[in-house]
Amino acid sequence: MSDLPKAVHIMEVGPRDGLQIEAKILTIAERKELVEALAEAGLTEIEVGSFVSPKAVPQMADTAALLGTLQRRPGVAYRALWLNSRGLNQAIAAGTVDIEGWIHLAASEAFVKRNTNRDIEETFAQAADWIDLYKAIGVAPDCVSIMAAFGCNFEGEVPVKRVVEMVARSRNLLADHGVNLRKLALADTMGWASPRHVTFLIGTLRSRWPELELKLHLHDTRGLAMANALAALQMGLREFDASIAGLGGCPFAGNKGAAGNICTEDFAFMCLETGIETSVDLDALVSVARLAERLVGHPSAGKLIRGGTLSEYRG
Amino acid sequence: MSDLPKAVHIMEVGPRDGLQIEAKILTIAERKELVEALAEAGLTEIEVGSFVSPKAVPQMADTAALLGTLQRRPGVAYRALWLNSRGLNQAIAAGTVDIEGWIHLAASEAFVKRNTNRDIEETFAQAADWIDLYKAIGVAPDCVSIMAAFGCNFEGEVPVKRVVEMVARSRNLLADHGVNLRKLALADTMGWASPRHVTFLIGTLRSRWPELELKLHLHDTRGLAMANALAALQMGLREFDASIAGLGGCPFAGNKGAAGNICTEDFAFMCLETGIETSVDLDALVSVARLAERLVGHPSAGKLIRGGTLSEYRG
Repeated sequence: MSDLPKAVHIMEVGPRDGLQIEAKILTIAERKELVEALAEAGLTEIEVGSFVSPKAVPQMADTAALLGTLQRRPGVAYRALWLNSRGLNQAIAAGTVDIEGWIHLAASEAFVKRNTNRDIEETFAQAADWIDLYKAIGVAPDCVSIMAAFGCNFEGEVPVKRVVEMVARSRNLLADHGVNLRKLALADTMGWASPRHVTFLIGTLRSRWPELELKLHLHDTRGLAMANALAALQMGLREFDASIAGLGGCPFAGNKGAAGNICTEDFAFMCLETGIETSVDLDALVSVARLAERLVGHPSAGKLIRGGTLSEYRG
Repeated sequence: MSDLPKAVHIMEVGPRDGLQIEAKILTIAERKELVEALAEAGLTEIEVGSFVSPKAVPQMADTAALLGTLQRRPGVAYRALWLNSRGLNQAIAAGTVDIEGWIHLAASEAFVKRNTNRDIEETFAQAADWIDLYKAIGVAPDCVSIMAAFGCNFEGEVPVKRVVEMVARSRNLLADHGVNLRKLALADTMGWASPRHVTFLIGTLRSRWPELELKLHLHDTRGLAMANALAALQMGLREFDASIAGLGGCPFAGNKGAAGNICTEDFAFMCLETGIETSVDLDALVSVARLAERLVGHPSAGKLIRGGTLSEYRG
């Protein structure tokens, strides 16, 4: 376990990826309470919502209004997600999003069509618009995320080779606009990753582009999220998305009822017990997980909520 | 990941550790259906029940009768658990248990008192009786299990040093009876283990007694079972207990409502996806997990049940 990082950075995605699949649509006041509690518990980057069609994802309507009402904590980045130029324009217009220059791609034709109503070619074509939009507001468009990077419920296996080719193509596209790809997020959107796959994909990308900052977005669809996170930590990964109480899932993933994202408090617990620092207060975070359960109105897949932290023994 | 074993052996403990905490007490016919389905799905060692007080654990009453009705599959070992000499005598009298010479210890005074109404000294004292009983039926008493080997909800941290001392003492006790300790099971009864702790404890025991066969019994109380299993696999461990649908928990662990054992089908899935062979048919096992959910009458923590196997893509 020699390559373990000293500390990890967690982006909390519960208010977005967590809530977007819930049957109950939370009010702005409820979403505000959740986001503020997450920041209070020590999370320093929070995906607050998304700028997507309120018809397709009604849970994420009013994200601009939510952002407007937030009591902001210094040192916390309040993010949002967009999947097309219209969404990015809305985020820019809101003026309240801490915008990072992400370009969202997907490694599966079948999934990207369901999720964004575009194919991979069209996604790359639209990326040029995004680059211009980011540049116009002084944000470097130097982050790329690849959804379905490990496999797809509609298409099957996603070969490592395809991901590598998408990264190479993204780098070229950015280079054409005078930008260096700085950060790459790999999303296991539908829970296809295994520890071996994680190790191999990260290792392959690392050996080709050692300077790339890598980030992992894991789902627990098939029960391997925590083991996959461990495999990534062992490869030295320092950035992870996670969702409070393990809520979440993509409405377009085709596996309704399946488990959600890797659970923030359980993941933070593993890090702390493995000697890896996080920014969170674990007991406070478990309280927020309980709040999240109350807000969505059902028990979650989170384990620490019921198992209990070991903080009384940890000094 | 170079030390990964080629194959793992899973002892299914669902019919015992899984059912013993359930509110609903299954009939002998229901338990029989579950055990036979597990064997059918490829599990070759199944803990069918326990010989303990039916007052304390009514779910496990009639284990002898259950064993008597089982349709046995060739090549499958039908095990049972006992925690005192009376239970062992009952198992011997039943004549239907595939008896392995296990001596059960615990590394926590507080837990062993709650679980067996004896302290650690008394447990070691009784072990001498067990050794004689095993020998009298021609079974080598060469297996020791240590419950609460990672920590205890009533006592806190269990230092690695204490486990090492218990192993040394067990070896001496067995040596006094002319027996070599062959197999050691480490049970994370209350879900205190972390990947680092697993790696360190296994590494410590290995460096001192390299010839010892090690077996791990994991609970997902705090969400780390799968990551802990991965850490153990990376140390080359080849034997694991697991429970169908992730059912389980100890009635005397003091964490009612917490998650149960590591889930058999999810663990088998990780092994298969990581290139490690198991004896199970994964799709058949998921069907048995659904049966287990129906029998206990509530949804389980198992993920593959809802996430789906990837067998259609795996050829």
